[in-house]
Amino acid sequence: MNALRRLQSELGAIVSVDPLDLVAHRTDKSGWVADGTPLAIVRATTVDNVQAVLRIATEFRVPVVTRGAGTGLSGGACGTDGSIVLSVAGLTRILEINPDDELAVVEAGVINQDLNDALARQNLWFAPDPASKAISTVGGNIATNAGGLLCAKYGVTREAVLGLTVVLADGSLLRTGHRTVKGVTGYDLTALLTGSEGTLGVIVEATVRVRALTEGTIATIGAVFDTVTAAAAASAAITAARIRPAVMELIDPVALGHVATYLGPEGSAGLPLSRGAFLLVQTDGPAALAEAEAALIVLRQAGGEATLSTDAASGDRLLAIRRAMHPALEQLGQVLIEDVSVPRSRMAEMFDAIASISARTGISIPTVAHAGDGNLHPNFVITRRPGEAADAAVPDEIWAAADEMFQAALSLGGTLTGEHGVGVLKRRWLRDEIGDTSLVLQRQLKAVFDPLGLLNPGTMFDA
Amino acid sequence: MNALRRLQSELGAIVSVDPLDLVAHRTDKSGWVADGTPLAIVRATTVDNVQAVLRIATEFRVPVVTRGAGTGLSGGACGTDGSIVLSVAGLTRILEINPDDELAVVEAGVINQDLNDALARQNLWFAPDPASKAISTVGGNIATNAGGLLCAKYGVTREAVLGLTVVLADGSLLRTGHRTVKGVTGYDLTALLTGSEGTLGVIVEATVRVRALTEGTIATIGAVFDTVTAAAAASAAITAARIRPAVMELIDPVALGHVATYLGPEGSAGLPLSRGAFLLVQTDGPAALAEAEAALIVLRQAGGEATLSTDAASGDRLLAIRRAMHPALEQLGQVLIEDVSVPRSRMAEMFDAIASISARTGISIPTVAHAGDGNLHPNFVITRRPGEAADAAVPDEIWAAADEMFQAALSLGGTLTGEHGVGVLKRRWLRDEIGDTSLVLQRQLKAVFDPLGLLNPGTMFDA
Repeated sequence: MNALRRLQSELGAIVSVDPLDLVAHRTDKSGWVADGTPLAIVRATTVDNVQAVLRIATEFRVPVVTRGAGTGLSGGACGTDGSIVLSVAGLTRILEINPDDELAVVEAGVINQDLNDALARQNLWFAPDPASKAISTVGGNIATNAGGLLCAKYGVTREAVLGLTVVLADGSLLRTGHRTVKGVTGYDLTALLTGSEGTLGVIVEATVRVRALTEGTIATIGAVFDTVTAAAAASAAITAARIRPAVMELIDPVALGHVATYLGPEGSAGLPLSRGAFLLVQTDGPAALAEAEAALIVLRQAGGEATLSTDAASGDRLLAIRRAMHPALEQLGQVLIEDVSVPRSRMAEMFDAIASISARTGISIPTVAHAGDGNLHPNFVITRRPGEAADAAVPDEIWAAADEMFQAALSLGGTLTGEHGVGVLKRRWLRDEIGDTSLVLQRQLKAVFDPLGLLNPGTMFDA
Repeated sequence: MNALRRLQSELGAIVSVDPLDLVAHRTDKSGWVADGTPLAIVRATTVDNVQAVLRIATEFRVPVVTRGAGTGLSGGACGTDGSIVLSVAGLTRILEINPDDELAVVEAGVINQDLNDALARQNLWFAPDPASKAISTVGGNIATNAGGLLCAKYGVTREAVLGLTVVLADGSLLRTGHRTVKGVTGYDLTALLTGSEGTLGVIVEATVRVRALTEGTIATIGAVFDTVTAAAAASAAITAARIRPAVMELIDPVALGHVATYLGPEGSAGLPLSRGAFLLVQTDGPAALAEAEAALIVLRQAGGEATLSTDAASGDRLLAIRRAMHPALEQLGQVLIEDVSVPRSRMAEMFDAIASISARTGISIPTVAHAGDGNLHPNFVITRRPGEAADAAVPDEIWAAADEMFQAALSLGGTLTGEHGVGVLKRRWLRDEIGDTSLVLQRQLKAVFDPLGLLNPGTMFDA
């Protein structure tokens, strides 16, 4: 009996070896395509299914790549040659919403937006807010410690996770954390597993913190600056003024040019998008209007042409400019989205570094930033030669430019990845950031959870 | 050459073997006294000192008990027989305060209040707020993932730690985390080390998040209820009304009686403290007054006799009632402070369980709770027979009552310890909460960091 036959005999119809299915699971939203062909796709719908897969994988020494919605941007959920792709997208039950304890218990495959829709009926929400929320899962959110637009004010995903149920490499079940606001019994395995990218165990269930929906006005400012340096300085001035926007997003002139073309004049919300950098600031909560008015003064003093909206419709028109960024670039070719993060005070320098790498290499690098927290997404748009496969490997010159960008971020006290994860794509720079001592320790921690090296090998660490 | 001679020859005057010094370091604020006598006390003032101690400890296989201010409440910093007590209380430098990036870099021995005093000059603050803040260190705060009064609104210590510098068991230096709001490169060792109680490494430096000082009015409500059940229901009603107080503290009738006696009539802020349970609610931020007025209505509807203060002086009089709790009990004998935490909705049941344990055993258990987050501190007051040592062991019948209390908390979905840590005192209940699978994993993680078992053996796990 081999691993595949055992999977099929134990799990039946949820095991797929359809060639198209196998090919489709070699890639994720990063555009990375794994070499070779996975052994099978297993679409788990119960925790028992997941345990069975891990038991079989351990028995037959077959690697397991766990996958949620496949919206990851680091190649961390791509079915590698001979692996079992274990989809937890079918674990979709919302098990509990508890307004009294401000928590929810959900299975890993619940879509972020679906959870928020269910919570909204009780005036609650789940703060982690990746741009992919309409299509990404809570489990994927946790496995990558995803960020999003609201982190400076509302925290990263880790802060919203109270406890986890995790299937370990041998198929046994681990429960971590608690249902309480505080709890310090033993090591914080919940936090260790958050952001572990499927390398330590398979998250099947999570107890998450939820909050009261923020009440009151939402105020939105759109501002255009002559240069990205001026826009970055303006966003730093807002932080320095101790204003705490819920959202603060910055689009550089290269990217904004594409957005302006994509939206056309009617989508510009009356702002001169074709000539400069765009800063979007949104405040919420009881002081939203006062904060927005203070922010407006700061932005104008910093040289911005700015407009403040307090009604939903005109606020949405400003947000639509930010939302158009990715679709505008996707029209031009395959987009590789990078994800460096720097201390907020160094953001202007990071934009300078990107501009200088772009000038030196001749590669255009349209960039958007979560300016409230210093997380930049420089984009590489890959245009293919006629006849070249749309999913061919990223050209070496782009990785060379990315390498320069990562070194620049590290030298500014920043990180390789603010919210997308190391995955396959940033593995080779891991040591540059964390150093040898940490790398050795991290590999040993991995070995405690996964002594046979079966969990997502090649993600985060070299296999 | 033995370990002591090596310590003395390498480190000179910072090594103490003064018998009184050795005895004083066998205990901490929990009242626990370790058996035997430590080998030496080393008062490190530099990271180099700490590294030297760990290298020597490894070479000679001598256990190391790391200690900050010694304010821990779980016996986790008590010098055990033959151990080196490594004090980091002398690492007192504030290395950086960076308002632009909203962070500070401090050595482990900096007193929490000293950091906040320095930050306040720049309109900033460090949110972790243990009751001991005037005398406890930032390093101890992090090593125990301390809580305090503000956690429901402002988070636990873990949320405020961005990065750490840690001396590992062999004396090498590990740096974790980042200076950025977001960063997901590799495993979250910062979070794993936070709350690790000196068992994984010695925290010598931390990069912490700081915030803008909360502006505007602080509104304070004091309310008295006939029963603790009514007070707990009122606090749950405040959470259910989606009001988010900065502080919400509950004192049960047994404890409040002692407080009333201790403060006398002039300290009662006009409230009938001698007949019921006390609830303190404090709101801050731009909506403080509106929230307090809404809370006042909720409390009165719940049967409370309540008074609202918006000036500092009368607010302080209400807070003084809560602050008097511990001094009032200390007048009666040695106080063992327990630290269970339950989901907020189960708090009334936990109070019931405590009352029933108290009735059954005849042991008085005055209790205070951080009601905003469900963290209860039931207290045992130990009165000594004439001639008995003041630091004699806690009587067995008190541990038996505590055992019942821990089981009750666990059966309500709670934890053994919300904020004090496992230490020595709660070690024997660790497995009851986390289970065998987690216990085995946690011991293996400990072995990765500390293969020789030298770091605080007997804390958290059986040695």
